[in-house]
Amino acid sequence: MKHAVSQVVRFGDVDGAGIVYYPRFFNYFHVTFEEFFNRVAGVPYDQILYKERVGFPTVHVETDFGIPLRHGDPIDVEMTVTKIGRSSFTSTYRVLRAGKLCARAEITTATVDLDKMEAIPIPERYRAALEKIREDISG
Amino acid sequence: MKHAVSQVVRFGDVDGAGIVYYPRFFNYFHVTFEEFFNRVAGVPYDQILYKERVGFPTVHVETDFGIPLRHGDPIDVEMTVTKIGRSSFTSTYRVLRAGKLCARAEITTATVDLDKMEAIPIPERYRAALEKIREDISG
Amino acid sequence: MKHAVSQVVRFGDVDGAGIVYYPRFFNYFHVTFEEFFNRVAGVPYDQILYKERVGFPTVHVETDFGIPLRHGDPIDVEMTVTKIGRSSFTSTYRVLRAGKLCARAEITTATVDLDKMEAIPIPERYRAALEKIREDISG
Amino acid sequence: MKHAVSQVVRFGDVDGAGIVYYPRFFNYFHVTFEEFFNRVAGVPYDQILYKERVGFPTVHVETDFGIPLRHGDPIDVEMTVTKIGRSSFTSTYRVLRAGKLCARAEITTATVDLDKMEAIPIPERYRAALEKIREDISG
Repeated sequence: MKHAVSQVVRFGDVDGAGIVYYPRFFNYFHVTFEEFFNRVAGVPYDQILYKERVGFPTVHVETDFGIPLRHGDPIDVEMTVTKIGRSSFTSTYRVLRAGKLCARAEITTATVDLDKMEAIPIPERYRAALEKIREDISG
Repeated sequence: MKHAVSQVVRFGDVDGAGIVYYPRFFNYFHVTFEEFFNRVAGVPYDQILYKERVGFPTVHVETDFGIPLRHGDPIDVEMTVTKIGRSSFTSTYRVLRAGKLCARAEITTATVDLDKMEAIPIPERYRAALEKIREDISG
Repeated sequence: MKHAVSQVVRFGDVDGAGIVYYPRFFNYFHVTFEEFFNRVAGVPYDQILYKERVGFPTVHVETDFGIPLRHGDPIDVEMTVTKIGRSSFTSTYRVLRAGKLCARAEITTATVDLDKMEAIPIPERYRAALEKIREDISG
Repeated sequence: MKHAVSQVVRFGDVDGAGIVYYPRFFNYFHVTFEEFFNRVAGVPYDQILYKERVGFPTVHVETDFGIPLRHGDPIDVEMTVTKIGRSSFTSTYRVLRAGKLCARAEITTATVDLDKMEAIPIPERYRAALEKIREDISG
């Protein structure tokens, strides 16, 4: 299965040089992450946070910025999962413009009990959803 | 008494035209608002929110943007209070660059109980602090 | 004709109280403004800025925030035009959640030559597009 | 020589869980980066961009988020340089709260001619400034 979210580079995303200010890329990744729960897991992200009280803090980020994006650019942000641990997982995000890879990120996310702020095992339901977009690196 | 906070226009604040993207002005105002509690009221703003559970939702905003600001500009944001009601007050913010007025805002803020999300009277301690920076419009 | 853009309140839009931090509303308005050019005027907003070198600085903002929005809320942002002058116009934005009005803004925008940073008359093409979404206040 | 910039976690930086939304950390790093030019290199960052037309696009980011930061937290962001190449360099940022390391980033930055958008050698002046905050990893 493939999970991707189409987005548009907005006026407020670019800097004085007319290209996307790099911290804004993380918003594109996060929108894609939220939509993963809505579309693939079938549970609205906000419900997970506020009802189930499960949170997903980002613990590690590694990003390559290749081709600068400009205001008005339509982009597709693809999300796959490359590692699923006990209480954390690693997602890969690819930003494509007209099919061309412009940026790539690996983001490791923990699962926590938001009330106790303690690590918890990835709930089964979300583990199954993560498996659905697992990137098969063996071929 | 005068309350003003010196700030600097950052790279992330300007748009593709090289001037401050107008929604960012509200961040300058809010920093000044937070510092009002820290400096004038003598109570850290976060403590009011998280310990006292008093919140300050913005209910009305009126802003004039006169002179565009550029990246690197040092600014002073002055805050005065022009109206103090039972459970809301109106502050005026002036953005000055080298003493010249560049933008001006009137912001009306309510006081609420964050747990019940209900309007409450402005707590006395903060009412007294607001009085300290009241703008005397009679002369 | 009606111009409205459906949006979703994202995780990054809400504050520590779990409701939309009010400066973020201006992003919703601006996305709606950009889409007005894309959809109603038929010219991509970025092309107007970077090719035609016409800019739209915000000169006045008046906003009422009524009902707080929460993370995950789907919203419709309607844009109408209430005043069209020689070199500026006033738009009204309404934020609706499930058809209910949550916030309302009047934003006055100037038209400038981005190279000279001087006011220019609203180009005819955009004036005609603005007329298309003019709000008939006479009834 | 040591370069560090004191900052405060603002209301607009935290998310619905009351902790800093991780993309905001990159703003803290960028403020520290801008101040490096102002304070260590002795040339205002905006002047480098707009007058000298030298830009500093971010090409790679690697970040570890350890301890969550809360609204109101005072932080020190230290910047050192660990690698200086021909037309790029790598900086390390450490976010400290009360002396305790909360987050750490390695950011690789290229130097480009903003008009041609082509890589250029790091200008000597800035190379010398980068050397001043080089982290001596040999001991």
